[in-house]
Amino acid sequence: MYNAHWLAVALRHLTHCALYIIHRALFATLSMYNELKQACYEANMQLPKLGLVIFTFGNASVVDRERGVFAIKPSGVPYDTLSPDDIVIVDFDANVVEGSKRPSSDTKTHAVLYKNWAGLGGIVHTHSTYATAWAQTQLDIPILGTTHADHLTVDVPCAPPMDATMIEGDYEHETGNQILQEFARRGLTPDEVEMVLLANHAPFTWGKTIEKAVYNAGVLEAIAQMAYLSCTLRPDVNRLPASLIKKHYERKHGANSYYGQ
Amino acid sequence: MYNAHWLAVALRHLTHCALYIIHRALFATLSMYNELKQACYEANMQLPKLGLVIFTFGNASVVDRERGVFAIKPSGVPYDTLSPDDIVIVDFDANVVEGSKRPSSDTKTHAVLYKNWAGLGGIVHTHSTYATAWAQTQLDIPILGTTHADHLTVDVPCAPPMDATMIEGDYEHETGNQILQEFARRGLTPDEVEMVLLANHAPFTWGKTIEKAVYNAGVLEAIAQMAYLSCTLRPDVNRLPASLIKKHYERKHGANSYYGQ
Amino acid sequence: MYNAHWLAVALRHLTHCALYIIHRALFATLSMYNELKQACYEANMQLPKLGLVIFTFGNASVVDRERGVFAIKPSGVPYDTLSPDDIVIVDFDANVVEGSKRPSSDTKTHAVLYKNWAGLGGIVHTHSTYATAWAQTQLDIPILGTTHADHLTVDVPCAPPMDATMIEGDYEHETGNQILQEFARRGLTPDEVEMVLLANHAPFTWGKTIEKAVYNAGVLEAIAQMAYLSCTLRPDVNRLPASLIKKHYERKHGANSYYGQ
Amino acid sequence: MYNAHWLAVALRHLTHCALYIIHRALFATLSMYNELKQACYEANMQLPKLGLVIFTFGNASVVDRERGVFAIKPSGVPYDTLSPDDIVIVDFDANVVEGSKRPSSDTKTHAVLYKNWAGLGGIVHTHSTYATAWAQTQLDIPILGTTHADHLTVDVPCAPPMDATMIEGDYEHETGNQILQEFARRGLTPDEVEMVLLANHAPFTWGKTIEKAVYNAGVLEAIAQMAYLSCTLRPDVNRLPASLIKKHYERKHGANSYYGQ
Repeated sequence: MYNAHWLAVALRHLTHCALYIIHRALFATLSMYNELKQACYEANMQLPKLGLVIFTFGNASVVDRERGVFAIKPSGVPYDTLSPDDIVIVDFDANVVEGSKRPSSDTKTHAVLYKNWAGLGGIVHTHSTYATAWAQTQLDIPILGTTHADHLTVDVPCAPPMDATMIEGDYEHETGNQILQEFARRGLTPDEVEMVLLANHAPFTWGKTIEKAVYNAGVLEAIAQMAYLSCTLRPDVNRLPASLIKKHYERKHGANSYYGQ
Repeated sequence: MYNAHWLAVALRHLTHCALYIIHRALFATLSMYNELKQACYEANMQLPKLGLVIFTFGNASVVDRERGVFAIKPSGVPYDTLSPDDIVIVDFDANVVEGSKRPSSDTKTHAVLYKNWAGLGGIVHTHSTYATAWAQTQLDIPILGTTHADHLTVDVPCAPPMDATMIEGDYEHETGNQILQEFARRGLTPDEVEMVLLANHAPFTWGKTIEKAVYNAGVLEAIAQMAYLSCTLRPDVNRLPASLIKKHYERKHGANSYYGQ
Repeated sequence: MYNAHWLAVALRHLTHCALYIIHRALFATLSMYNELKQACYEANMQLPKLGLVIFTFGNASVVDRERGVFAIKPSGVPYDTLSPDDIVIVDFDANVVEGSKRPSSDTKTHAVLYKNWAGLGGIVHTHSTYATAWAQTQLDIPILGTTHADHLTVDVPCAPPMDATMIEGDYEHETGNQILQEFARRGLTPDEVEMVLLANHAPFTWGKTIEKAVYNAGVLEAIAQMAYLSCTLRPDVNRLPASLIKKHYERKHGANSYYGQ
Repeated sequence: MYNAHWLAVALRHLTHCALYIIHRALFATLSMYNELKQACYEANMQLPKLGLVIFTFGNASVVDRERGVFAIKPSGVPYDTLSPDDIVIVDFDANVVEGSKRPSSDTKTHAVLYKNWAGLGGIVHTHSTYATAWAQTQLDIPILGTTHADHLTVDVPCAPPMDATMIEGDYEHETGNQILQEFARRGLTPDEVEMVLLANHAPFTWGKTIEKAVYNAGVLEAIAQMAYLSCTLRPDVNRLPASLIKKHYERKHGANSYYGQ
């Protein structure tokens, strides 16, 4: 019985290999998006590894600005069965360009951000525990320490809840608009602030590269946890003084930055 | 030497296979429940892997409605020694149909739910940390974010404590009744709401399949943790507006759902 | 290069084996305590595996009542370098009977408990995170749910701080006495309640076997975490009603217990 | 196809080995700091393993007092790509003595501490979660239990925020001065107290050896978590009585210490 089972496994494997080679030979060279898909796949796989998503609670996308498309995780596919071929290519209006699967239900939000913010190379959406808990409270994450100031000089902004008209309309598209409007209202730029909370929902992060967007998702969760602990331990905790915020940010990002290689 | 090692491994494997085939040939065909037991075994093994149980704090069951039985974990057997052959087959009155071990002490609760709710394919009971902490407070888990709304449109209901008569009577049977009555009282259906907390005890989750029931146990623990964090950070936190609840639920479950493949 | 490395590894291994065999042949048979040491070693190694200790923050002991001795972890030896030969054998007055290492600094506490409570087969002391946090508050862990009631029918007792005289005297001996006195004062027996917190210090657990004592250390940490969460979420949380406490305890421990095999 | 893949892996591996041997033969013997670099590398790699850092949030250094230099992690290099050759050697004024990479941006803080405190053999800086959350509140970590008292007899000191002049000046140098001044102001010595929080920033720990400094970083995080839990559970929690502090510290550190081997 084990032998039968083993034989079945082996045959299935061989068949799979053969089909894969034929598939590759016939079609793979036809796709100009293989590298983009691979990058998107690898970014998505980082999310469970960093403890930022369970099940299907998140998605990462990578843009190819020359071709005017981005690669994004398919909707509802668990991370442990995801493969690079599952990744979907869509344009900036969220139309599918290539791929047999339905793209993430959050695709339109990614599309709005890529379309309006030219500097973005990658976007990550998670429901990571502490960042999502903050989003549920509709509060900004206050800037309480240098871990935060090393990455941004303001509170992590929490975009307010959308009104019923926006929700009942083109919801995911409006989610993107809500982020754009909140940044405009606060006078923030996506180069300076690479993360946002959506009230009652969860965080989005981005970066010039997808690696930076994934990194920012991890940083945000760490900041969110530390701020949660500080605020519950000492509810009257103070924000960082301006001079310290400036110093830590300039160490990493200023004209005379001296952090990193 | 590597070859020698490999040979030893192969020989051990072959011997094991041979013994297994003989064992199977002699005994296994006597049971019509092998697939059911295997499915139940695999579901149970997911629980410690997902961080939802330690020691023996939980159990999963899978129903076979044609035969009118379900498979359930044996009582008090640690997960790291559990095998498919340990799984017990019982009918909807909790009588043992097959199996040399005593079934889970919660078997009657499972039986009541299967008997009364025809749509259930699997049930999971855990003492997962955050969900159990909520159950101990006797509070519903308020719907605070879209992580919650993606799965159900109401607070996670907490069935009230049973009175002394119910407890001193047929306790596990009454536990099932308590769930049924609370759903009736609130006008909930088990298709719409696939999870419940039992006051002072712990959660039960279910689904059309056992895979969905296990998934729901993981989702519930994530929701419970996020709600704990939001409520301790901001005790006056607001529930989701009705429009957003509706939208997120319909993305996944409505007639025009567009989540998943 | 790989071959050279591999050869070196193999030679080192062979040498080690040879020395081990000689060592065993010469000395090991001289000790009547090898089995006791091995059991003690295995119990100690469970503690970091269950997430209950880091570094050297804990110790487990196993008693041999016929010989009037117990085996205990040596003091200050990290778990990742511990071996069965390091385990120390002491009598009930904490005198070393066998072993080249100094026994745990908590040895006298273990000795007092073994000497006075004849039913104990093993004792575990950890500084596990949540149980220790409760001990630091000098509060009992209230019985809030059936996870707790499955194991004991009362709050987990927290023995009060010792007075300066006890501390400045034979401290670890007095720690044992403090536990005995608190159990006497509350009318508890070590068969019914197999765990205690020491105010400002940390927990001790025990059992008829060392496996049970280790299990109890894990159960206590889980109970402590759930109670922490429930109490911070709802400070006016209620204890379990007496009828439910009784029911759950009797499921596992009563004359008509029906939990386990 | 699998064979081709395997062959490619093997060839890549062989090439790598060959290049490594040539590199070593030509250059490695030229450095007198190889052992120091290796020790520093190993200490740094302990930090993510102990759960104390993610990404690049931390650094460890090891001093060679005879040569008047210390080895420190390069700035902004992730732990999973770090190698011993990346480690930078600097003198006590933070000038680079050897190494092709830029040293940690916190190098001047390490330098000030080594220069002024002759007993230090190693220093560790992390942004570990609970210790950093305490630093953000600007509160000392109160001494609440024996886990704390086994390591130091006072609250973990939190050095106050620096004023704008210090921050805008030679910031990392002044960070070191801030630690020195706070210890002087409180009458603490670095032999008795091997850890400090910097308000709004994060912890530094040290020791006679780098192993002790790493251990202290782990101990501090454990103490910080337990104190967080105790203080949120019982805000009016009391500090340890003086007699118990003295006893536990002397068990490990006094003239008649009896902890360890």
